[in-house]
Amino acid sequence: MSFQVTILGCSSATPTIDRNPTAQYLTIQDRHFLIDCGEGTQMQLRKFKIKFNKISHVFISHLHGDHYFGLMGFLSSLHLLGRTTEMHLHCPEALKEILELQFKHSDTRLRYPLIYHFTNTLNGELIFEDDVLTVETVVLNHRVPCTGFIFREKPKPLSVIKEKIAFYKIKPSEILKIKNGADFVTEDGQIIENKFLTHPPANLRSYAFCSDTTYLESVIEAVKNVDLLYHEATFMHNLKERATETYHSTCKEAGMIAQKANVKQLIIGHYSARYGDLNPLLQEAQQEFANTLLAKEGTVYSVE
Amino acid sequence: MSFQVTILGCSSATPTIDRNPTAQYLTIQDRHFLIDCGEGTQMQLRKFKIKFNKISHVFISHLHGDHYFGLMGFLSSLHLLGRTTEMHLHCPEALKEILELQFKHSDTRLRYPLIYHFTNTLNGELIFEDDVLTVETVVLNHRVPCTGFIFREKPKPLSVIKEKIAFYKIKPSEILKIKNGADFVTEDGQIIENKFLTHPPANLRSYAFCSDTTYLESVIEAVKNVDLLYHEATFMHNLKERATETYHSTCKEAGMIAQKANVKQLIIGHYSARYGDLNPLLQEAQQEFANTLLAKEGTVYSVE
Repeated sequence: MSFQVTILGCSSATPTIDRNPTAQYLTIQDRHFLIDCGEGTQMQLRKFKIKFNKISHVFISHLHGDHYFGLMGFLSSLHLLGRTTEMHLHCPEALKEILELQFKHSDTRLRYPLIYHFTNTLNGELIFEDDVLTVETVVLNHRVPCTGFIFREKPKPLSVIKEKIAFYKIKPSEILKIKNGADFVTEDGQIIENKFLTHPPANLRSYAFCSDTTYLESVIEAVKNVDLLYHEATFMHNLKERATETYHSTCKEAGMIAQKANVKQLIIGHYSARYGDLNPLLQEAQQEFANTLLAKEGTVYSVE
Repeated sequence: MSFQVTILGCSSATPTIDRNPTAQYLTIQDRHFLIDCGEGTQMQLRKFKIKFNKISHVFISHLHGDHYFGLMGFLSSLHLLGRTTEMHLHCPEALKEILELQFKHSDTRLRYPLIYHFTNTLNGELIFEDDVLTVETVVLNHRVPCTGFIFREKPKPLSVIKEKIAFYKIKPSEILKIKNGADFVTEDGQIIENKFLTHPPANLRSYAFCSDTTYLESVIEAVKNVDLLYHEATFMHNLKERATETYHSTCKEAGMIAQKANVKQLIIGHYSARYGDLNPLLQEAQQEFANTLLAKEGTVYSVE
């Protein structure tokens, strides 16, 4: 079952000739999410042949344009293309006013329900849960209210080993308990540990998206041990002062967060338009955390 | 001196894999204008290597997203890139509220003055004039208030033929009169007609932009004799009913407008996403008006 992040845009504030503003497409099993939606996101979705009507939830980190200026176009196109199923939007509260004002002036009544869920920047919280996964926010430190998002798979019932069920003649009512982790007691009182009756559980995969923010110790705790961390790395560390002024992180800092949080893999992105060659950015992050990759548009990063 | 239209986007409501929503870059002599600003316009300007800080005026026809969703990104990037000179925005009044709300929530105070000039849809009017040109609106018929724009060069002082000035020994005070069209009277009372003293005046070039609208007789009068007409042609005429429902024109109708208005050349655009091959659209318009061209992104159309 897939767990994949596709980078749709990896530029910071101003796009460049070959880098679009922030947007990511995330699939977890058969769930389809959009994280941030910079200008041109709908064109990027088309370019990478992503069926964007499958997307059920959009997560917007904050109200700087490079993270949401594509949202009106994305939502409008879904309307024009005939969508009727719900769309859930997790975002700062002010976004509702911005969208509704534009729907009003364009005389647009969406054919599908657009359901708002407002994020807060007081504390990280669970904002979505279904059978398969949870989504939590992580509070970031930016010039305007901003949250990251952590996506985690939920445990599934264990898969039983058929031969053992047959061998011990286990009844259906008992199998259900075993799937939920119980041991089995035979008629003669012998305890068969659960681990001998079930296949090992699948790893629970997780992805944390952190953009935009200064270096923040509290992020380390929040993203501890995730499989994949996307952390913004707008500047190299020689521009640390500029990073601080603009509430951004450096590549070195992104690497430090990954290292201290003991994540498995780091993707850096949200590059300042001043950087043409991104390899020095990668190298700087890798000095702190070796398993770092560059966000590249159109690239799909799988969590195994 | 240049008079050129560059097509930045030629798609209607939803963009396609290779067509962006409406935007045009217009240069008249050393003036630089943007007409409409669909999503992705700033990327298109970069792609076609247009120095967009030169643009002094933006003209927005109406508040459907495919004509203005790129404006916030365009204005924000100019701010981030350090612009300090005035930007004039000619637009429906409601756009001010839409922009200001977003500037507020992103905590953006533009470094340059953004000066609003509101269009009206009661009557066409002169909305801009300088030494070189005038801009008038033309009222269109769309689902929301919508205007087109007509750009016309103004007459320049005539250029005198130096040899004639020397021959007749004409004084500077008389030369000024001749430049403004006067004949010259010699000391012995002989009248030298102005046309023998001056080079023929340059043709006054003109461009009319008409998108989005139903077929409208009043447009014919407004754009009479312009050199270049851009007229939307969202559908082919077999979808006339759909065109009417959505307040759009067909290719045949665009050709009829051009023919009846006696323009020199027609560009059609704003194609529905349903059309892959655009040649049938061109042929349909050409049956009404032979000198028709297709709007193609990145193509520069010169008015001679």
